[in-house]
Formats: sequence, C-alpha cells, structure tokens
Amino acid sequence: MDQPIATPLTAEQVDRMTLWWRAANYLSVGQIYLLANPLLREPLRMEHVKPRLLGHWGTTPGLNFIYLHLNRIIRDRDLTVLFIAGPGHGAPGVVASTWLEGTYSETYPEVSRDGEGMYRLFRQFSFPGGIPSHAAPDTPGSIHEGGELGYSLSHAYGAVLDNPDLIAACVVGDGEAETGPLATSWHGNKFLNPAQDGAVLPILHLNGYKIANPTVLARIPPADLHALMTGCGYDPIEVAGSDPAVMHQALAAAMDRAFDAIRRIQQQARSGDGKLLPRWPMIILRSPKGWSGPKTVDGKPAEGNWRAHQVPFTMEKPEHLGLLEDWLRSYRPEELFDEAGRPIAAITGLAPVGGKRMSAIPQSNGGLLMRPLRMPDYQDYALDVPEPGGVKGESTRVMGAFLRDIMKCNAETRNFRVFAPDENNSNRLNDILEVTNRAWDAETVPNDDHLAPDGRVMEILSEHTCQGWLEGYLLTGRHGLFSCYEAFIHIVDSMVNQHAKWLKSSRAIPWRRPIASLNYLLTSHVWRQDHNGFSHQDPGFIDHVVNKKADVARVYLPPDANTLLWVTDHCLRSWDRINVIVAGKQPEPQWLDMESAIKHCTQGIGIWPWASNDQNTQPDVVMACAGDVPTLEVLAAVDLIRHLLPNLKVRVVNVVDLMTLQPKSQHPHGLTEEDFDALFTTDKPVIFAYHGYPMLIHRLVYKRTNHKNFHVRGFMEEGTTTTPFDMVVRNRLDRFHLVADVIDRVPGLSARAVYVKQAMRDKLIEHEQYIVRVGADMPEVADWRWPARG
Amino acid sequence: MDQPIATPLTAEQVDRMTLWWRAANYLSVGQIYLLANPLLREPLRMEHVKPRLLGHWGTTPGLNFIYLHLNRIIRDRDLTVLFIAGPGHGAPGVVASTWLEGTYSETYPEVSRDGEGMYRLFRQFSFPGGIPSHAAPDTPGSIHEGGELGYSLSHAYGAVLDNPDLIAACVVGDGEAETGPLATSWHGNKFLNPAQDGAVLPILHLNGYKIANPTVLARIPPADLHALMTGCGYDPIEVAGSDPAVMHQALAAAMDRAFDAIRRIQQQARSGDGKLLPRWPMIILRSPKGWSGPKTVDGKPAEGNWRAHQVPFTMEKPEHLGLLEDWLRSYRPEELFDEAGRPIAAITGLAPVGGKRMSAIPQSNGGLLMRPLRMPDYQDYALDVPEPGGVKGESTRVMGAFLRDIMKCNAETRNFRVFAPDENNSNRLNDILEVTNRAWDAETVPNDDHLAPDGRVMEILSEHTCQGWLEGYLLTGRHGLFSCYEAFIHIVDSMVNQHAKWLKSSRAIPWRRPIASLNYLLTSHVWRQDHNGFSHQDPGFIDHVVNKKADVARVYLPPDANTLLWVTDHCLRSWDRINVIVAGKQPEPQWLDMESAIKHCTQGIGIWPWASNDQNTQPDVVMACAGDVPTLEVLAAVDLIRHLLPNLKVRVVNVVDLMTLQPKSQHPHGLTEEDFDALFTTDKPVIFAYHGYPMLIHRLVYKRTNHKNFHVRGFMEEGTTTTPFDMVVRNRLDRFHLVADVIDRVPGLSARAVYVKQAMRDKLIEHEQYIVRVGADMPEVADWRWPARG
Repeated sequence: MDQPIATPLTAEQVDRMTLWWRAANYLSVGQIYLLANPLLREPLRMEHVKPRLLGHWGTTPGLNFIYLHLNRIIRDRDLTVLFIAGPGHGAPGVVASTWLEGTYSETYPEVSRDGEGMYRLFRQFSFPGGIPSHAAPDTPGSIHEGGELGYSLSHAYGAVLDNPDLIAACVVGDGEAETGPLATSWHGNKFLNPAQDGAVLPILHLNGYKIANPTVLARIPPADLHALMTGCGYDPIEVAGSDPAVMHQALAAAMDRAFDAIRRIQQQARSGDGKLLPRWPMIILRSPKGWSGPKTVDGKPAEGNWRAHQVPFTMEKPEHLGLLEDWLRSYRPEELFDEAGRPIAAITGLAPVGGKRMSAIPQSNGGLLMRPLRMPDYQDYALDVPEPGGVKGESTRVMGAFLRDIMKCNAETRNFRVFAPDENNSNRLNDILEVTNRAWDAETVPNDDHLAPDGRVMEILSEHTCQGWLEGYLLTGRHGLFSCYEAFIHIVDSMVNQHAKWLKSSRAIPWRRPIASLNYLLTSHVWRQDHNGFSHQDPGFIDHVVNKKADVARVYLPPDANTLLWVTDHCLRSWDRINVIVAGKQPEPQWLDMESAIKHCTQGIGIWPWASNDQNTQPDVVMACAGDVPTLEVLAAVDLIRHLLPNLKVRVVNVVDLMTLQPKSQHPHGLTEEDFDALFTTDKPVIFAYHGYPMLIHRLVYKRTNHKNFHVRGFMEEGTTTTPFDMVVRNRLDRFHLVADVIDRVPGLSARAVYVKQAMRDKLIEHEQYIVRVGADMPEVADWRWPARG
Repeated sequence: MDQPIATPLTAEQVDRMTLWWRAANYLSVGQIYLLANPLLREPLRMEHVKPRLLGHWGTTPGLNFIYLHLNRIIRDRDLTVLFIAGPGHGAPGVVASTWLEGTYSETYPEVSRDGEGMYRLFRQFSFPGGIPSHAAPDTPGSIHEGGELGYSLSHAYGAVLDNPDLIAACVVGDGEAETGPLATSWHGNKFLNPAQDGAVLPILHLNGYKIANPTVLARIPPADLHALMTGCGYDPIEVAGSDPAVMHQALAAAMDRAFDAIRRIQQQARSGDGKLLPRWPMIILRSPKGWSGPKTVDGKPAEGNWRAHQVPFTMEKPEHLGLLEDWLRSYRPEELFDEAGRPIAAITGLAPVGGKRMSAIPQSNGGLLMRPLRMPDYQDYALDVPEPGGVKGESTRVMGAFLRDIMKCNAETRNFRVFAPDENNSNRLNDILEVTNRAWDAETVPNDDHLAPDGRVMEILSEHTCQGWLEGYLLTGRHGLFSCYEAFIHIVDSMVNQHAKWLKSSRAIPWRRPIASLNYLLTSHVWRQDHNGFSHQDPGFIDHVVNKKADVARVYLPPDANTLLWVTDHCLRSWDRINVIVAGKQPEPQWLDMESAIKHCTQGIGIWPWASNDQNTQPDVVMACAGDVPTLEVLAAVDLIRHLLPNLKVRVVNVVDLMTLQPKSQHPHGLTEEDFDALFTTDKPVIFAYHGYPMLIHRLVYKRTNHKNFHVRGFMEEGTTTTPFDMVVRNRLDRFHLVADVIDRVPGLSARAVYVKQAMRDKLIEHEQYIVRVGADMPEVADWRWPARG
C-alpha cells in the first residue's frame, strides 16, 4: 500500500470538514428515515418516521466524504469540476451536499436552506411525487443517472472531451466496477488529448460489498488491484481506513497529489512538451460501507457490512426507534444547524462559490452551453439524379461528405464528434478523415491510418463506450453521431433506455435546457451483411426505440442518398430526441433528386407518382415501402407488374419517417386519419415491404381504417451468409414474391394473373439454381434498373 | 518481456508442425478465394476464383498456429480441450483444422478429406447455401458463434464449471478484448473452483489491428499489459514474433508452462492443499495479422497491417491473379496433399485421436451429455390457497424452495446452477442457499453470507457475465436459471439474439443434439420497483424476445405462486428454447390452488369462472389480464363492478402463456381461431390489463376476429419512485381506471353507470391526496382482498 503520509490539512480545516461531513451524513439519514421533526427539536416518535423506508445508506457517507474533499480542492485551486456519482443509489448524499452548498434551494426555492426546507428535503426523498433514490435529472449538477450501473466513467470521458478546463471527478462504485461497460471504460485515457480535452479523475470507491455479496475488486489482493489500475494506464493513489480524522488527511493528500499530476500532464501537453499516454492519476478509496452508521443492528454487524447497503434497519421493532434517534443525534445536529435550521457558516463557507459549485457548473446542464452546429447547406451534397433509378450511389458515402464539412465548419468551436466501434470507414464515412483524424493517444507505427491525439472520430471496439462517450458529450452541450452496424446496436439497448428516460424526465424539469439529440446511423443493415451471416442480421433496434415515449423517439428510413442528406440535416438540428437513421452503404439505385427528396422528407411519407399508375383514380393495390432494400424490391415488383399486368393500377407509397404511420393521437408525426386513408385507401389491399420485423408495421397501423388489408413483408428471422438478393428471397420480400402477393390479394384479376404468378415461381427457382451454381445473383436482379423495360 | 527460451520441440516436430500450419493456411486461403482448382493442379485462372470474395484472413493463420499447438499438448498429455475461437471471423482456420483432423468429413461426408472434398470445402465457404465466415453451430467442436464479440471468455468459464477434466482454451482477439463484456469476464477466475471445475486457458492473441484501427491492448506499453493481466489474477506468459520456426518453440514452451501450471493448481486443490485465488496461467501471443500472407499488395503493406483484416486483395486488377497464385503456391500444396488430395500422414498424424480431437469432444455438442434434471414434484411446494385471494404469498420465494430441492436432487450429478447479478436473495430465492453457497474463490471475512469455492449460485454484478456463463454451461449439456431485475435484462438483449440464432440454426443441424433451455426469471418487475425509480422500470424484454423465431421463444406471466411452480417445472424440463418467466416477489394475494393452477397452466390461458358472472351466457365485457399486478387490478375492478353494477356480465380471462394469443399459424402455442373466439367473443369489448407495453398485445392479436374491440392497458412509460398502487394509476392500469374503461366501452349501460364512473374519478383523487399526505397507499387498496364485499 502506497498510503500518503502527508498531512496537508490544518487542525481547523479538519474540524470544519468534519462538521460538513456530519451535516451531510445527518441530512442523508434524515432523507431516508424522517417525515417530520427534521432537526430533532423534539424526541423522535414513530410518527416522525416515513411509513415506507426506501433508499440506500451504504454508499452515501463515502460519497459525502469525497464530495467535500473535492470542494476543498476546487476552492484552493479555482477549478471547474464535474461530479459523477457512479454508485447507483447515492442520491441522499449528493442531494445533501448540494443543499448544503445552497444550489438545491436556489433550484427549488421551496426546499429552502433552513428548517422548513429541511422538512421538505427529507419528506420528498423516495416519496410519492418526490425524488428518486439515485442522482437523476432533477439533481442539480448531475449528468448521470445512477440507476443502471456501468456508464459513469464513459460519461466522464465524454464530458471532458473538448472541455480543456473541466475535470470530471468520477466515483466508481466497486459494484459498478464489476460490469462489463465499466471494466472497459478505464481505457478512455487512450483517447484523451491532454492538450485540448479536460481530465478525468476516477475515484474507485471500495465499500467492499454490493447488495448481498462482497465485490471482486475489494477482495482481490491489493497488489493485484494496483496492477490492474496500472495496467489500465493509471497511477493509483490509495487511501484506506475508517478513522475520519486520519482519512481527512489521507484523502486530502491523495487529492493534492492527483490534481498536481493532472496539472503537470496538462501543462506539459499544452506547452507542446507532452508525451503520448501520460500516466493519469486515479484514487482508490477504501472506506466502510455505511461509514458512521450504526455498528450493529439486532446483534449483527451493520457498519462495514453488506447489511448497510440499503436501509440498515426497518422500524418494525419498537427498539429501533431509539437506535435511529441515537444514530441521528450522533451527528449532533444542534451544532450543525442554527436556530432556523440553516447550516452554520463554518460549514457553508467550505463550499465553492457560485458557478464553481459542482452542483452549479453549467457543463452539468449542457443545454445552457449548447450552440447549434454551423451547418453547410446539405443541398450542396446532393447526388445528381436525372431520373429515378438513373444512377447508383452509396448513400452513406454521400452523407460522409456532408459530415466532413460539418466537422470542418465546427472545427473552431470543437463541439462535434462522430463515434463508431471501429466501423467509421466500413460504414463509408471515410471522407470525415479528410479533415480530422481518429482520436488516438497511444503509440503509432508506420502505415497506421489517420490516428492523432486531437482526432475527432472516436473509435473503440465497444459499443458501450461509444454510447457512453457520446451521451457524456451531448449532456455537456455538444453534438454527435454514432454510426454502427444495425444488428450490434442492440448491445446498447439498455443504455438507450436510460438515456430516453433521462430525456423524458428532463423535459418536465424547467431548468434543464434541451440538449442535442442522440443520433444513430445504422448501416451494414440486415439486408446487406455480405461479409457476414445470420449473427449480423437483426433489425429489432427500431422496435426497441419505438417503445419509448413518442416525444423522444424518431425513426427514419431514407431510401436513397438525397433523402439521407435531408434526414441527417434534420436530425443534427434537433434536440432532446433519439433519432434512428437506417440507411444503406452499398451502391444502390438512387430515386429522388434533391428537390423531390426535400418535398418527400418534409412529409415523411408520400406517393411516388412516377412509380405509380393510378393517376386521378383509386388504385387496385397500394405498394408501400420503407427502407432502401424494400424500396428497391417494390419498384422492381411494380416494374414487373407494369409489363406483365399493365391494366393493374398500382400506387407506390414510400415511408421515410416511420412515425407517420402511428395515429396522430399517439405520435406528433402521425398522419391524421384523413391523410392516412387518402394514401392507403380505406379498402384496397396494401402490400407493405418493410425493412424490419413485419409486426412493427401492424402494431403502428392497427388502429387505421384499412388495417385489415395490410399485408406486410419484412425480416422473418431467416438469415444466413448469402447474396443480397437471396436474403430478400428467403424472407419473401423480393420482387417476385411481392408480385405474387399482389396477385393473391387483388380481387378480380384476369386469367393472365395465374400465368404471371407461375412465372414468378419459375423466376425464384431460376434464382435458386443460379446462386447455388455461381455464388452470385443473376445479372438481371443484380444489375436491375428502373424502369427496366421503359 | 518474459519470453520463454526453452526449445521443447525436436527439429522433426517443428518440421511436421510447419507442414500442418502450411496446410491449414493453404486451406484457409483456398476457402476464401477458390471456387475450383483446389489443389492448383493447373495454373490458376480467373474462373477458379469466387465471384464474391468474402471472409477474413487476418486472424486465421494465428488461430491455425494456436490450434496445432493445442493438438500437440492434447496428444502429449491426453487432455480434453475445448477450443473457443473468440476472433469473430476465424472460421476459415477453425474449419481447415477440423478438416485436417478428419472430423469435418466425418460430420459432413460429402466434404471428404480428399481433393473432391477440398473442392466442396472451398466452395461452401461464405457461399450461398454454404457456411458463414465465423465459427457457428455447423462447425464441429464449436460452442461459440464468433459473430458478435465479447463473450468468448465467459462462455469458456461457463463450459468448465463442473467439468473437472475439461480445459477450455479460449482465444481472445485483441479487438474483442476492447468490448465491455470481455473486459470484465477475465474475473471469471474468482468464481472457479479448481477442485471440482475445469480450467480456462485464455490466449490473448494480439494481431495488432481491428478492421481499420490498431487495438488498445496491442499498443499500450507491454509492461502495462502485463500488469493488466496480473491485475486480473493471471500469470501472463508472453510469446511474440513472426519467424515460424522460433515461434513454434516459443509457443510450445509457453503451452508447456501453462498446462504445467494448470495441472499443479488442480492437483493441489484436489489433494486438499489448494489456496484461494490460485494464479492461473494465460498466454499473450503477438503475431502478425495475416501472418504468412502477402507482404504487400499494390505497394502497400499487407502482412502485419490492418489491410490484412478481411480479404487482403480483390480480383478487380488482373495482376492480382498472379499474386493469389504465388501466395497459394508459397505453401507448396504438392508437398501437403497426396495424389488424391488427402493430407499426408505426417500432417494427419499430429491430430489427437477420436473423441480427443477438439472438433469431436462431446462437451462441444452438449446435448450428447445432457441428462434431464432430477425434479422433485413441484406440487409438493404448493401454497395452500383455500379460496381465491384468501392468502398472500411471495411467489418467487415459493419458487425458491422448489429450486432449493432441485439443487439438492442434482447435487451429485452437479449439472444445475443458478445465476444472478447480485440479486439472488433480492429476488427471494434465498432458500437455495440452504443447500449450497455462492461461488466465491477469493478472500472471505467474518459475516460474509454463504460464500464458498464450491457454491452453485453464481453472482457477479455483470448481467453479461451471468448470461455468458449460463450459455457456456447450457451449451456443454447442463441446466440453469438466470434471475434478474426485469429492466436490466435488456443489458443482454444482444446476447439473447445471438443465443436465439444459435438455437434456431442448431435445430436445422441433425448432429447437434438439443440442449437445455435458457430460462429467465424476471422479477423486481416494472410495477414493483419500490426501492427504485423510473430507471428500473422497463418491461420491453418481452417484446424483444417475441421477435425471435416462434419455435424458440416462450413468455410466461404466472399470476401467483402455484402457477409459477408449474411454469418453473415446465421450463426446466424443456429444451432448445428461451423461456422468459415474469413473476412478482412481493407479498400478493394468491388465486389458484394447485389443481386449478395445473389446469390453467396446461391451457396457458383460460376463463376464471369464480371471478366471472357470465355463466352459460355471453358476457357484456371480457376483462383479460396477464401478469400478477394486472391480474390483481382486474380482480379488484371486477369486484367493484359486482357491487356497483351487479347486472353487468363480466368474464375474466387470465393469460399465463403469452404465446397463446398469437395465431396458431404463427406460433405452436397459439389458440385456434375457434378457441380464441370462444374466450374473447367475436364482438364484445375486451379490456385487457397487461404487464408490459400495450402495443405487444395488439401486435399478437391483430389478426383475431374481435381485435377491433380490444382495449389494452399496460406500461405507458410513466414511471417514477412511488407507491405500488400509484404506479398502476399513473399508467391507467388500476382498478378505478379499468372500471371506467368498462363503462366507456359497454353499450347500453344504465344511468347508474355515469354515477359509478364519477365515483371512480373521486377514488383516484382520494388516492392522490392520500399518497401525497401519507406517502403510502390507502389501506383499502393496499390491503384489498377478494372478494372484498363477498
């Protein structure tokens, strides 16, 4: 153990810091237990205690200890520090600290910094209509919801990117440290540029226990833990003990050493004297779980044991009332709060001032700092499409050129980054690397490709880390895009849940300003997994996002490059949303010129008149499509119908914005009933070729007039390593099956239809024989263009 | 660097191993490139090359190298080794090796071990109707699909649990090593009991690059990597280089050292002389990406560079034909294969024999070894329910007693474990700890709770690791259950996808024998997050699973303890499925005695006659429910209706097996149209109270006759920290809203209904005022029992 022996604090400092800690701990216990009598001005009675005891004590005193030591450093050095409370249920501590420094009452005036406010502070905690037991959007100073564990450190790294003066002090609980996302996020230091980014100070807080078990990192040999942190590139500074007086000196010394090291690394880098991979400091703090709480409860150990994790004791036994009162009085509240219940000046004077308080820094309410991106005109990147289907293009490559220039336009403000799990170029966004590099602060060798410490393309083979970085970046007021293979974005399903919940909750909090939307580009999608197989084929992320609140979720399926440009521009200008864009990266026919693309995307859905032949009449069938590959197959099917069944009146409807399908009552983008019926008719068959699982379309349109006539084709979970066209055949989404679907569903067709249906079957057999023999698609489908026989 | 200097191999051994490696590499390149002329008996022409070049070369030669060295060790020491290929796209190598050792041809006789078979071997790779580019269910010897990265090491640890004679040699790619799930899975060694479990030998294979970027672990200082592995509890043995002759000696020495260490640790533990946390060996192998491939392509480096990741060059340039031929001929195939194309005896003689071949060990086809669990009679655990609603019970606690005895019954065969992210007791499965402990091989201290190296309850705060361990355990022929908070099971969405795909693919492979189902108990569900808030409320995992193939996915929502017992018994006896059980852990009224529960669960859905008053007639309204909390609210609503609107005829339908709702054509459990209509009528309003997102019910029943009259209540994403009853109120799933829903939808009600609806509104206001004042639910809802006014 490498315990610092310095004693940087004066006795008076220790005394005052002890006062603060006692006050914060008192306020924490009060929140968990008390409904009334907050200052214990009268003997504690059962009716002063909450009827439902909810909350988590175990982690709280340690958090309070760290928080107050950070305050010392902030004041001493005039720093801007973002506090991230990784431990899931630390809200009693975080809220207590922010109340002590005044921010809580400034934010919520009714919870004033006096006895009356303390009453409300206690009552609201884990109480109906009150606040949750983990830091949340309503907590001043927080960008991190401590509900689901694993993301504190990636949030911290994301927050300090392009924030050279910000230091994120990130408390990692030893429970959270067992999660996979946290375990890999230590490596964020390889992607941090000390010259232009801020710093992260991880504080691994070893309480020793999770809910009911010891934690791995608390029980491995200390030398192993030291090696682990060294192996992750840190210089671990260790502090361990339980005597508050000793621990005050030890943690203060550790903090001094850590912040000295940060300053040294940054000064060296900023004077051009930096080295790659500087060894950043981190702190390992071992303190008892439920520190300063009851030593035993009912004869069993509480402090320092897993039993202190949540509420250390309930009030079912009458003798617990005395236990609670003794515990509360052990903090001697009468010394901490004045007659009016205000914390005494010796305590409040320890807090930093104004916007330097961790609960008040603007970076923790990123919308305050968010500046809209400077956007070039997306129309300048338009692909020339002289006629529908006339040219081929790689949609995401066109988007890449647009993103390159967005990157360029915002180079000075440094508030835009793109993120990908080693897939930026695979996703055809290569052009971005013309104006920036991939962030990389480790060793480079000849023939490496575009690596530099100041790169703005963030690539690590961890979807979790990409997502966590991006969230941290957005929550502190910047912009970004996450590009990912469609199937593997499911890896972050649960993180998306949490971010959606954060956004929904934030919208109801007036002081939380809107932040830039979380934008996904999903490509290498289910239909074009040419290099891969079944394991890479899953379009279900859309379904996952659609379950989120309507005011948060958007899903776009632009069928070609110009529609993708419009959608990209639209999403990057939006706020407080989760935008999912699914688009292809392979060379595919292009349908709309820029003008048509704008018109089409502005509606989000519409008839493609050039592909339809029902002008001024009711169609016999509506052929709808959403997604690039389904659009191609529908148009190829329409092309076949035109020539084989020329009297059939077909209307083609393309859907870019999936939310238009939902009723207007359920989603703001939803079409009115009239508009929907005008597009889809009230009684004609609708053959709908959809990018993902067909059920989603049914679930979106089940309330619509004509729903019973909707026949949806999509991914039926029939995947394998095969050709692009064979993939659609296996899932019956191909042109030949679609034509047969039309014939099956349009009543009163001529006898010729029977012959056409047989011809479609023959085509499918021909296809099957061809790919088995040649291993590629028949030229007639691989090279098909619209209109084929025009 | 700690390079072993021993030279354990004779010159002849090196020569023969070099022959094998050349053959395996030749076969790998052949699979990626060749459609014909497999033995290069004639000059290579363009028509011999595949029209679509798909596959991954970069990782393959290293995998081949490792594989052949493992073969040496297996032969020398008569070991049973399971090979896990973590690198995503290593199939060319794995398949080549299994073909060389004969298993591939034994499994697929048409791919014979001769020239004719080699032709088929090459052709089928990444070819329509053929095999994917990563190890997959069709690969003999594999339990691990290399599509999505991150799970190799947790699969390895899961596989060796209770397999004392098995050693899993797990190759971790340096790309995969960046993922979160992999980063934490190193800690599997703290949960391994050397006395009764097998061993894992991780081989971290540093090729240096991912798709387009260097990898983190390849570029940090070697001392840091050493520290990282030491910190994870391993003794790293390092091998680095590119000269095959030197590398053969070095890897052989490293393997000797590693397997010696494993033997030593196991012998000590098994002789009762073991220590906690033995320092297991692991190997760090640094070898060039695309080792032995072309040094340069078009003047740019290929071997040792990221450009070697996939296909190092395409055939668009005519000069590449010569490059390919030179590359292939550099392995001198004429020396490796005889006239008939069979590998020469000097090569095949290096493989282990029969069932010792890694591609043939029965553990890799776990169904071969699976023995059904010995199950006590679940009826013995029945809760006595003298009348519906007559008693309260904690459903999962009752299940825990059943699980305890299952654990006991199978103690001898050691083929059942339960897994949880530190939630076993929180989920009320405590009773299991009466007969076993939590697995824990690290330090213990007084007051720890049920920790022991031979524990069979696996708890780490990582849903990824729990899932990976369980998958590895099941795939090697054992049984298990994963209990988890409902919201956080989304963390493994993507892993569930991959396992579902594995099961679907396996079902189509005759030699893959069925394995035990992957069983989830989801509790601490959306409606009862008393300690937590919005972040813990998400019922969407059901939606995710329902997208999987019908023959794989099952979802059960038992409303009480006895139905949960039946469902548990049923799921633990099933195979090749993913069973999701959602059940409550809080004290709740119990509805069915065991006999009724059996009858009800056998149908999966049914009318509860004791709660209905439509006997022998058509009801005015059907009130359906699925899930414990919705069932409670529906019954409370029915109770209100009975007293307030006694003439209304209500039918109560409870759904245990969600898949009964789907059409029979879509799911084998689906009700026929007749049966569905008999339950839900063809024209009466159906008020459906559902556990999760209402849309799922619509999507399941949209084809049913009476769908237009379905009105579904469920989770509307309105969550917070509040009381149980307030949660249902916020989502309009409560009894008062349900009564109002009935009144709104049943036509022709008496004027009295208007008064009742107003009374319901008053009740909701009363509720709201009460919880804000008291912080708990009104006694009349908290203590409600059926029938309230009987």
